[in-house]
Amino acid sequence: MKHLTRRNLLAGAAAASAATALTPVANSPASAAAPQATTQAPGWYRYKVGSYDITAVTDGRNTFKLPDTFVINAKKDQVNEALLAAHMEKDMMTIPYTPIVINTGAKLIVMDTGTGEANFERSKGVGGQFFNNLKASGYDRNAVDLVIISHFHGDHINGLIKPDGSPSFPNAEIMVPAVEMKYFMDDAEMNKQTSERMKGVFAGTRKVFDALKRKVTQYEVGKEIAPGITSVATYGHTPGHTSYVVASGGKTVYVQADVTNHPALFARNPGWHAFFDQIPDMAEATRRKVYDMLVVEKMMVQGFHYPFPSVAYVEKAGSGYREIPVMWNATL
Amino acid sequence: MKHLTRRNLLAGAAAASAATALTPVANSPASAAAPQATTQAPGWYRYKVGSYDITAVTDGRNTFKLPDTFVINAKKDQVNEALLAAHMEKDMMTIPYTPIVINTGAKLIVMDTGTGEANFERSKGVGGQFFNNLKASGYDRNAVDLVIISHFHGDHINGLIKPDGSPSFPNAEIMVPAVEMKYFMDDAEMNKQTSERMKGVFAGTRKVFDALKRKVTQYEVGKEIAPGITSVATYGHTPGHTSYVVASGGKTVYVQADVTNHPALFARNPGWHAFFDQIPDMAEATRRKVYDMLVVEKMMVQGFHYPFPSVAYVEKAGSGYREIPVMWNATL
Repeated sequence: MKHLTRRNLLAGAAAASAATALTPVANSPASAAAPQATTQAPGWYRYKVGSYDITAVTDGRNTFKLPDTFVINAKKDQVNEALLAAHMEKDMMTIPYTPIVINTGAKLIVMDTGTGEANFERSKGVGGQFFNNLKASGYDRNAVDLVIISHFHGDHINGLIKPDGSPSFPNAEIMVPAVEMKYFMDDAEMNKQTSERMKGVFAGTRKVFDALKRKVTQYEVGKEIAPGITSVATYGHTPGHTSYVVASGGKTVYVQADVTNHPALFARNPGWHAFFDQIPDMAEATRRKVYDMLVVEKMMVQGFHYPFPSVAYVEKAGSGYREIPVMWNATL
Repeated sequence: MKHLTRRNLLAGAAAASAATALTPVANSPASAAAPQATTQAPGWYRYKVGSYDITAVTDGRNTFKLPDTFVINAKKDQVNEALLAAHMEKDMMTIPYTPIVINTGAKLIVMDTGTGEANFERSKGVGGQFFNNLKASGYDRNAVDLVIISHFHGDHINGLIKPDGSPSFPNAEIMVPAVEMKYFMDDAEMNKQTSERMKGVFAGTRKVFDALKRKVTQYEVGKEIAPGITSVATYGHTPGHTSYVVASGGKTVYVQADVTNHPALFARNPGWHAFFDQIPDMAEATRRKVYDMLVVEKMMVQGFHYPFPSVAYVEKAGSGYREIPVMWNATL
């Protein structure tokens, strides 16, 4: 019996690859082949938490050259090492965006909104997918009753308005963290900013909320802000950054927003400070507390920047944590 | 500033849960809410290997009470421990099925076929989904040029025929491992079987291949059996069990078929013998060789029984291996 060895396996693969590259395919069919498909599957995935439906709806992702200071307290080599360990590309960073939709049976709720429809064209369809995927998932934006915002960075709020500045969810109440609203709408805070990036973040928040005439409902932390949805202070990433426990029928999921960015870097290395963590030490303390809790409670986490469908459990791994993606269920 | 503690978080969550369960929702909207969606996303996912399109197409899954002897050389308690570590349910087993479709640009190729359309009704849509999802992915079963079979267990071959016994892929050549064909079509081997299960496996192979009048092409291992697709002997799970290296443009994916069943049990514990491994010691030796190779070569693996979309990298973990799912790409 012939058996696998690495040498004959790879020799075979190399030969196959060379054959494909260099010579006409010997056994091409006489008839034309089926054209190669050009589309990806619609980016949504649905699961139940008690009687609630949760639909993870990807807004796509952003891939960019890894900045030297992407992690302000780690060397680029260390970041590259973590990327390679996760089988991601060296010197490049990819950040997925995954808002969710909760249907409680009584309310249709969107949590965070993605990078906005204007980004769909700008990114050639790589980002800004939320509204297309929402529709594909079977929900009409006009049926959305409530939009809950975790914090005011652009990838979470830009989807609140259409490219023409009108509301993306015309029939929805918009709820924002009171602490975040106070901070970002404070002109003194805005005028204090020295970095171009933070000036841009402030300008972005004004653009969105001014378009909405600042007609939003401010919510407090530690309270049930909608049926079964309790807000939790997870400050640090921004001054008012907020997460949620969604509970129904004795089941829960923790919606973490940006407690970590991509888990391959920041769950694995909770001590790393991403350059967009506005209060890095506080963000780290929050991250460690939340992740220790997720481990102890074996609580499912929905992570905005986790790889789609962005729902996982968490376990300790070395000096950090590792996510265990929830097994895809092919039925509801 | 209020801050997260586990106590106040969980008190909040418990209160939310209790409130939802026991009291009418205070802030229900006056208007009817959007009806809860009843469908799951179509179960297919597409990625490129060089110039080849690969589409993972789920056939669904099977969930059943964990048999006492599911792993013949481990105690049920140990298996339960591994299930719980993977955040799966204790005393239950779930096995996903994921055939793939390869479009080389010249040929449309299906690898393994799932549990068959008759199983869709039998399982109430939980399994037997392959043909629905194939269609949703944009491919017509009539356009399939070639079906490649890894081994003759029912979840891999039953989809070759329709419930009425006619071919599921009327225009496709069907390629099967010569070693597997010889073994399963040998009446002496069939008559040797003593277990009801193995008698059933043999009967199942006759049912399928007799319906096809045994009109199949037998392929040898270690050869390029279709453009860029090299067969590799991975005997043990069955006597002729075969895997593949798919190579295009210098990129590769290893299509492992059943070198492991669910990775949470059998990649993590390569020494465990699933009761359906026909030659357990050989299956284990194959598993260790293949997985050591996947780790060293950092080669992507497509696993028939991996959680959808069933494509991952592999790393060493303790005395076994751990899969790192490939990050979902929301564009092609």
